[in-house]
Amino acid sequence: MILDRNKLNVVPFVSVNNMMNIVLDIGVEHVLTQIAAYIEDDFKRWESFDKTPRLASHSHDGVIELMPTSDTKFYGFKYVNGHPKNMKSGLQTVAAFGLLADVDSGYPIMLSEMTILTALRTAATSALAAKYLAPKHSKTMTIIGNGAQSEFQALAFKALLGIDHLRLYDIDPDATNKCAKNIEDKGFTIVKCKSVEEAVIGADIITTVTADKQNNTILTDNTIGQNVHINAVGGDCPGKTELHKDILLRSDIFVEYPPQTRIEGEIQQLNHDHPVTELWQVIVGKKQGRTHNKQNTLFDSVGFAIEDFSALRYIYDQMQNTKFCEELDMIADPDQPRDVYGMLKRKDQAIKRLNN
Amino acid sequence: MILDRNKLNVVPFVSVNNMMNIVLDIGVEHVLTQIAAYIEDDFKRWESFDKTPRLASHSHDGVIELMPTSDTKFYGFKYVNGHPKNMKSGLQTVAAFGLLADVDSGYPIMLSEMTILTALRTAATSALAAKYLAPKHSKTMTIIGNGAQSEFQALAFKALLGIDHLRLYDIDPDATNKCAKNIEDKGFTIVKCKSVEEAVIGADIITTVTADKQNNTILTDNTIGQNVHINAVGGDCPGKTELHKDILLRSDIFVEYPPQTRIEGEIQQLNHDHPVTELWQVIVGKKQGRTHNKQNTLFDSVGFAIEDFSALRYIYDQMQNTKFCEELDMIADPDQPRDVYGMLKRKDQAIKRLNN
Repeated sequence: MILDRNKLNVVPFVSVNNMMNIVLDIGVEHVLTQIAAYIEDDFKRWESFDKTPRLASHSHDGVIELMPTSDTKFYGFKYVNGHPKNMKSGLQTVAAFGLLADVDSGYPIMLSEMTILTALRTAATSALAAKYLAPKHSKTMTIIGNGAQSEFQALAFKALLGIDHLRLYDIDPDATNKCAKNIEDKGFTIVKCKSVEEAVIGADIITTVTADKQNNTILTDNTIGQNVHINAVGGDCPGKTELHKDILLRSDIFVEYPPQTRIEGEIQQLNHDHPVTELWQVIVGKKQGRTHNKQNTLFDSVGFAIEDFSALRYIYDQMQNTKFCEELDMIADPDQPRDVYGMLKRKDQAIKRLNN
Repeated sequence: MILDRNKLNVVPFVSVNNMMNIVLDIGVEHVLTQIAAYIEDDFKRWESFDKTPRLASHSHDGVIELMPTSDTKFYGFKYVNGHPKNMKSGLQTVAAFGLLADVDSGYPIMLSEMTILTALRTAATSALAAKYLAPKHSKTMTIIGNGAQSEFQALAFKALLGIDHLRLYDIDPDATNKCAKNIEDKGFTIVKCKSVEEAVIGADIITTVTADKQNNTILTDNTIGQNVHINAVGGDCPGKTELHKDILLRSDIFVEYPPQTRIEGEIQQLNHDHPVTELWQVIVGKKQGRTHNKQNTLFDSVGFAIEDFSALRYIYDQMQNTKFCEELDMIADPDQPRDVYGMLKRKDQAIKRLNN
């Protein structure tokens, strides 16, 4: 039984502050490793999920999206925006919250902040994909775009793959300095670079994670050699890409959920039937990942609902053993389930008694 | 400016208790009238909304749905379940919460319980439709199905149309007794009936609002005369209908949003191209509602996202002037927007200082 019968009105809530408490209590790298394990478990039972491309509402300056999925036990969804211009006014480019519910009753069982959790799950997913796709014994990762996601990427790749050399580049040197400073005590050798060309030198893995909502060419084909893994994170909505088409044509492309990635990912630049491999099929062994050392692999990551589901499930499991949540009075719980009006009426009478 | 720059992490939350406080402070009938006015206003600018059928996740015992919509200023969505079996275990058949967000930034501006609010908006929508469709000078309404929605229907029709005679029927007499008792002080003449046939005698308006998830025949064609308005509320998902097909064929049918109603409404029983009229077109005067006194009109109500949007907008406006909300720490707000990791790191340092 998932619901607490004595508190049917209550939905546990993990605030931003409590998300930080949970993550710091366990340790960021440990959390990244564990979330990746939850995602890997869920990707292994991919076919048991109810899947749909996210429902996006586009406006002039951004997008608001709902990303639901469910298995037979839990239903989860995430609300997330993407507003590149927000940063200039001191707001988050990407802010999110999410919910886990009990499929059997339809009742919510946890509401959670997901701005921090999305940063964690995105990095965990990238590192999980790289575990299957990156060159063996990868040590050096380039990160192009040193914003809010960059440190999480660095730590996830350290935790899951043992990456210990970072080459950082951003068009804004302040962003690079911020990233380098934040993780200076994590055991990386860090090189701050002045150009993309400098940044990609000697990289086993190239992570692109920029935020502009437009078709950019962060990487051109002649900057990329062979035997590299490209982790393309920033291109994640229609009209927002980071890689030159020629790179795509020269890479073996791996995606989360093709119906969504063809709309939102780097492959929106390609024909609708361009061959791609689903990551979950590599994870379960149905398809091959990296096969030879002249191959370039590309993980065209856009973020899929199952990853959020896994992350919410992870936080839900952690929350059980901690005091790091609050109780929200969110679901009406009348004495008799059909008597919603009676609940109002009895409260009215109680207020009137108090006032007399 | 919608956002409070000094509290960018905060989303105001209207709990179940505070929703009751707001509704009782204003008065239920007044709230129903005002929500109907907000819905009417929004239906008048129907074409300015971003519309989509709700996103439904069906499971063995029920459904969980997300219902988003937006105009150029606000984005709103509702989470709502439908689990008929819940009642037997003391849970709500329909529980809901919703969110209003600022389109410009993508930031949430209010989270609210919506179990009570959905009951209010459903009744307000029914009465609004009847204002345009029911026989003039209607006085008597039959309500078949006397569960959680029934009192709200009665009060909305009293407030908007002056209905003062009620004929109640439910397969469970306890439900009828509960409904009658709850509104005994509201000035209605109430007749508790023992059958559908008895209940519909002399009715100007027949409201059906039962909860079973199956194709039922609550009303057969020979129970219905002419010059009545049928307000069909309970048939609202695939495989869940209340009326015999012959009633539909003999009525002029009005709906909220055809792409959704054809899947979920009574008209799922009809051909895909059976003519229906959109309620908003009647409200703006583009189409006719009731035209003669031998006509049967049918409002095939399934509940559409714009109604929830209007209801949330209404509560948002009321909340501004009251203390009836709480503050949720829901959106990460680092000192620098790109520095989510730095926020974690500084909290870690603060915890360590405290522990030393």
